[in-house]
Amino acid sequence: MASEALGTEQGPPSKKAKTETLSFPADDAIKLENHLPPIGYKVEYSSPKRGYGKPFVTLTFATSLDSALSLAPGVRTVLSGPESKAMTHYLRSRHAAICVGVGTAIADDPGLNCRLGSSPLPGPVHQPRPIVIDPQARWAFTEDANVLQLSRSGQGLAPFILISCSLSMDDPELAARRTLLERHGGKYIPIESTAEDGSGPGGRFTWDAILEAVSKEGLQTIMIEGGGQIINSLLSSPDNKELIDSVMVTIAPTWLGQGGVVVSPPRTTGVDGKPFTPIRLTETLWHPLGEDVVLCGKIQR
Amino acid sequence: MASEALGTEQGPPSKKAKTETLSFPADDAIKLENHLPPIGYKVEYSSPKRGYGKPFVTLTFATSLDSALSLAPGVRTVLSGPESKAMTHYLRSRHAAICVGVGTAIADDPGLNCRLGSSPLPGPVHQPRPIVIDPQARWAFTEDANVLQLSRSGQGLAPFILISCSLSMDDPELAARRTLLERHGGKYIPIESTAEDGSGPGGRFTWDAILEAVSKEGLQTIMIEGGGQIINSLLSSPDNKELIDSVMVTIAPTWLGQGGVVVSPPRTTGVDGKPFTPIRLTETLWHPLGEDVVLCGKIQR
Repeated sequence: MASEALGTEQGPPSKKAKTETLSFPADDAIKLENHLPPIGYKVEYSSPKRGYGKPFVTLTFATSLDSALSLAPGVRTVLSGPESKAMTHYLRSRHAAICVGVGTAIADDPGLNCRLGSSPLPGPVHQPRPIVIDPQARWAFTEDANVLQLSRSGQGLAPFILISCSLSMDDPELAARRTLLERHGGKYIPIESTAEDGSGPGGRFTWDAILEAVSKEGLQTIMIEGGGQIINSLLSSPDNKELIDSVMVTIAPTWLGQGGVVVSPPRTTGVDGKPFTPIRLTETLWHPLGEDVVLCGKIQR
Repeated sequence: MASEALGTEQGPPSKKAKTETLSFPADDAIKLENHLPPIGYKVEYSSPKRGYGKPFVTLTFATSLDSALSLAPGVRTVLSGPESKAMTHYLRSRHAAICVGVGTAIADDPGLNCRLGSSPLPGPVHQPRPIVIDPQARWAFTEDANVLQLSRSGQGLAPFILISCSLSMDDPELAARRTLLERHGGKYIPIESTAEDGSGPGGRFTWDAILEAVSKEGLQTIMIEGGGQIINSLLSSPDNKELIDSVMVTIAPTWLGQGGVVVSPPRTTGVDGKPFTPIRLTETLWHPLGEDVVLCGKIQR
């Protein structure tokens, strides 16, 4: 089974949406409870610290022992086992929104839904709203995209795609995609983008711009799933300690070897000129799940 | 405490040997038992599979979440907490020999002894024999080296240093170091070295040459501790599955960031021309220790 669990999927995306049904045990769910947004979590809009009501942010991903998400960019790599996969879908059911970058959307054709058959806690299974970060609107999805198929069959929600407000909706292809998206209940959300160095407009969003847009949609909790650029960007944000409320990393007992897409934030220099402060998690829980472990914690201030 | 645990030590080595005393709980020791060489383990010399009696090999090291051993080459980085440190010393007490590369010997001035006050299992605390892999005899130790100080005070054993048999003992500095070493009960062990590509003599040892030399000294179990080059070399050995009997990796809940010394074996092409098989551990145990976790397993065949 272990060797089956470690496979790579490549080639054209499947034309059939994923419809398997997963199950996550209540015992495991209870152990993770302290690391999830409380049920019924509400953003404090009345006294926002950041000029907007920041959603509860959970950062979640699965790596190898050598911190790789995949063997190479664009190569979908199944690292973790079935128990960890079920956990991911449970976590999705506990967030109003789930977020991936455009690279993951293009490479994986992800379903971005919750495939739990039933909730381990009382109540129905909640479907999260997919948020795709795509400043240049590069994701050329069609109606065959897994996420749209699942939306049509009532097994998930269509994505909200964050694009740069500098893009013109007069572009015929973009307009066609917008129509397709809106027919499924999704939409493009244009937001302000900046240059890499923060000067003027460009191809990047700040995390505050992203989270403010999510908040404006009434989405009060968000799980950020990947890929590598998104995760490293969030971890290297100067105020990641305030942005990220919870971290849940699944680690599989495998080394993928040099050349993979790794989670390892760039080293930076602080305003005091001192090089780099490593990021440490505190209030940690290591919870074994099948052959993997999930590490839960908060970023130490 | 956590922020104290994550420090870096740089600068000239201390002139005083480490003399703290550590304690490892029996409950933890019992959980690790299946992943250690059995007490009284004997190499089967009568029917050696490899042309010599290969010792039991345990590969052990501690990394960050991004698989880094240290912030940079030669920078000693304390990653794991006191519980994991005590475990390392318990593991040392369970092996006839412990092994590091010359880079670690030079950078860390390590004590390479077991600093447990008492054994968690019945019986006295065993001191392992340090083995240093140093083909070019680069380690210019003096009598102030921690490992020699500890040997003088009866708290550890002097090292056996594996050097290339192509080096001449007529070199006065090498001869002086040999005298110093032998006065402490250590020695240089000249063994055959090969070029990087395996053709003719050079600056590298094969793992079989190393383990055969260890075996010839009557050392039947060895724990290989580091540093990065040694670990990656062992993991990338074509027959690592047969060389390594047990793997015990401690992971600390910290990202060190890009630029660290990482454990991630190079990707290679097999004899069948297929690229790279990731290394997967099987029969795994994830055992939380303080804020860290230790992953025990065997390399899947």
